[in-house]
Amino acid sequence: MSGPIDFYFDFSSPYGYLGAEIIGDIGLRHNREVIWRPYLLGVVFKKYGTQPLVNDPLKGDYARRDIVRTATYLGIPFSIPDPFPVNSISACRAYYWMLDIDVQRAKRFALRMMRGYFQDNIDLSNLSNVIEFAVAEGFDGNKLNEEISQEYLKNKVREEVNLAMNRGLFGSPIFIVDDEMFWGTDRIEQLEKWLVDGSW
Amino acid sequence: MSGPIDFYFDFSSPYGYLGAEIIGDIGLRHNREVIWRPYLLGVVFKKYGTQPLVNDPLKGDYARRDIVRTATYLGIPFSIPDPFPVNSISACRAYYWMLDIDVQRAKRFALRMMRGYFQDNIDLSNLSNVIEFAVAEGFDGNKLNEEISQEYLKNKVREEVNLAMNRGLFGSPIFIVDDEMFWGTDRIEQLEKWLVDGSW
Repeated sequence: MSGPIDFYFDFSSPYGYLGAEIIGDIGLRHNREVIWRPYLLGVVFKKYGTQPLVNDPLKGDYARRDIVRTATYLGIPFSIPDPFPVNSISACRAYYWMLDIDVQRAKRFALRMMRGYFQDNIDLSNLSNVIEFAVAEGFDGNKLNEEISQEYLKNKVREEVNLAMNRGLFGSPIFIVDDEMFWGTDRIEQLEKWLVDGSW
Repeated sequence: MSGPIDFYFDFSSPYGYLGAEIIGDIGLRHNREVIWRPYLLGVVFKKYGTQPLVNDPLKGDYARRDIVRTATYLGIPFSIPDPFPVNSISACRAYYWMLDIDVQRAKRFALRMMRGYFQDNIDLSNLSNVIEFAVAEGFDGNKLNEEISQEYLKNKVREEVNLAMNRGLFGSPIFIVDDEMFWGTDRIEQLEKWLVDGSW
């Protein structure tokens, strides 16, 4: 087994969600650990004065169509939620709180939270929804409710976001393996070839 | 045979070039005419205050890597030319001049001109190179040299660019079939599924 696949995504990113549905199998198939690293694209957008693709006046309509079409192409149930996009900071903090308790359950929470948002329109910016999904994965909801506004956890998320920005990341999903970056669900095929053939 | 595939690209766009290498076979395989419609992304960038991806301070380095890696993945010889990107207006005007003479040879010129640029670093912004490639396809080089600065031809290109912008186009390659838009070499698989299954 070689080094891990870093999987960067924003909970509120539809392409990130599609990536989350696929990357687990890729890791298993090629015997690579997948490290799920949610971060906050909103901070990147703010720093660089950019915005989500769906809000782009020129490309937004196409992007909304492309997201739905791509999900259909991949056979993944999907509908664009309302509201969308939303602030994913609570889900992100909850994930990093879970990470110290149980890595695998933290990943399952992340995937199910995104399924809730992108399949069943359950607003993941709403803390009570985040707690409900945490409880469904066996985490202590009252404890999470206490921890989520603690400074140490806010700082943990800030550090993760800063680390991602220092690596020059700007999108969701981004996969990094052997220091090679792949941006987008549509680069998973190239990522897989990389895992099979190494550098090419 | 159903309606054609509109293939929009900029001569100076590497992903557009990769699309040009692939789309001909797709059209043949699914019995659809492919209408090659070069336009000028520079005009789009200027209107919307945007810029080529490779010049984006945040995404530019990744984009340069992705272009080369994607070409390798597709098995298409490629290197990033220098200078790059360049102004493609002469190549674009030459193409629309040829279109009234011989549609198939105009397409061949377009493909070979891009191969010259993206494989052999032959600057396609240089009019003498454009004329040389036109002559190689059997066009009258002296005639092209006279025509290329005529008002009627400049207007023809302006009209094509305006038409593309009125259709809301913003990238290269963009394929449109049955009023459905596919943006990017990485959407050709979805385009092909569309051609096989119709709406899905």
